[in-house]
Amino acid sequence: MNISPRKPLPLASSLTQRYGGQSPKISSLPVNAVIESILDHRSVRGYLPDKLSPSTLETLIATGQSAPTSSNLQTWTVIAVEDTDRKARLSILAGDQAHIRECPTFLVFIADLSRIDRIAQAHSEVAEGNRYLEMFLMAAIDAALAAQNIVVAAESMGLGTVYIGAMRNRPEEVAAELALPPDAFAVFGLCVGHPDPARLSGIRPRLAQSTILHREQYDSAAEVAAVADYDRAMGEFQIQQGMKAIDWTRQTIKRVGTPDALMGRHRLVEALKNLGFGLK
Amino acid sequence: MNISPRKPLPLASSLTQRYGGQSPKISSLPVNAVIESILDHRSVRGYLPDKLSPSTLETLIATGQSAPTSSNLQTWTVIAVEDTDRKARLSILAGDQAHIRECPTFLVFIADLSRIDRIAQAHSEVAEGNRYLEMFLMAAIDAALAAQNIVVAAESMGLGTVYIGAMRNRPEEVAAELALPPDAFAVFGLCVGHPDPARLSGIRPRLAQSTILHREQYDSAAEVAAVADYDRAMGEFQIQQGMKAIDWTRQTIKRVGTPDALMGRHRLVEALKNLGFGLK
Repeated sequence: MNISPRKPLPLASSLTQRYGGQSPKISSLPVNAVIESILDHRSVRGYLPDKLSPSTLETLIATGQSAPTSSNLQTWTVIAVEDTDRKARLSILAGDQAHIRECPTFLVFIADLSRIDRIAQAHSEVAEGNRYLEMFLMAAIDAALAAQNIVVAAESMGLGTVYIGAMRNRPEEVAAELALPPDAFAVFGLCVGHPDPARLSGIRPRLAQSTILHREQYDSAAEVAAVADYDRAMGEFQIQQGMKAIDWTRQTIKRVGTPDALMGRHRLVEALKNLGFGLK
Repeated sequence: MNISPRKPLPLASSLTQRYGGQSPKISSLPVNAVIESILDHRSVRGYLPDKLSPSTLETLIATGQSAPTSSNLQTWTVIAVEDTDRKARLSILAGDQAHIRECPTFLVFIADLSRIDRIAQAHSEVAEGNRYLEMFLMAAIDAALAAQNIVVAAESMGLGTVYIGAMRNRPEEVAAELALPPDAFAVFGLCVGHPDPARLSGIRPRLAQSTILHREQYDSAAEVAAVADYDRAMGEFQIQQGMKAIDWTRQTIKRVGTPDALMGRHRLVEALKNLGFGLK
């Protein structure tokens, strides 16, 4: 199958949609194909049945490995799941999300300290640093940087992606399904495939840039007004997309209001310890 | 100043350099400007004194905000530091890295749960979920996804970047310097600026793709041979770059061999609790 990417929106349109009318003042746009492609991002939850073309996965992984990695330790691994039954089992473990079954390739990103454990062991040494929260965090960040390169590269080829944070809902069962060794944790998943154009969403608005970008020191002065504007912008977006309009503020408070709202992830410390991490 | 980006290497050369001769078999390369730019990545530790052109920072932040964010919670903030004295103080807190002083714009990425705390409080609610490790991890991942979009976008404009993990060496002092509220943590920094062409490094080799990409389940069978090959490839790269040749295996074991080797980050749990995080 030939890859014929959807042309990204012109940059000014992307920005208007992204900021819901609160677009930052950008006088002379440093435009190029990379920036246009990045600004045009939307998550894809509806896929066509077509498999990835030959060499696509290898190229995507090469882009992932081209991301920076802390101290060049490369503390991540990615497992490409294409088996129908395994995708179905993983989708059940992740809140029964249909797009995990639908996408041809489901990538599971592993925060992986086990490789260094094995290397140290082969030299009769102990990777004592791996017992600390710092190294777990570093591995999760390494995985995230690699994954985001893959997202940008995939979108430039006309493919769609969506992250699956719900890989963290039932970590021990995911680890068993993927035969993970100790000190390895499925930090998130990523669906990759050809987007179904009939189910492609618009560009989701984000908070005003003044809320996210601060100068010299932290400054939340502009926040209250920006959040009110954003609730309106998200409401308009949801109606436009045929979704139920719930304001962002209310949804956000609900999403982190109670331990139960974390969908199993309130027991992350216990799960990570069961998987061998020290978290000291 | 006009932006005239260095042209990325042809894709086949990037791949050969990245994999040090162990390049994955890619039969029909899905080439485009985005993938070429990503594969050409190298971290930049030498900067020219020129400032960023107008609108560059705003465009970069827009690419960061275009990255996916878990449940659209947007649990990150970025502080752009351009003040000479503040950059100097931050460089001291991060192991005295000269490039933090040298780059015109130093971005500090904040894993930021404080915004949701404030929003909940304004509605007389409590964001109890923020007390859990899961939410800290989510915030760190959100920051990493946004940052990597910014890295890719910056490189496409001909700018250089390098991540500064050492922002985590002395977290309470960094938080004080940036006036961070409770539940906000500087997870890493990012130097951004115009690379000094005289100090531009080559493409750093990575582990063979077979080590990082597994199929269906975790499988480290190819690892021992791949690591030995990699030690050789890194040795050649270091000599070529005029660096001291130390094999990767030895360097890696040393880097995580003891708590002290974590450069202060062995006390990350204590530091995060001092900064208000629950980590339950």
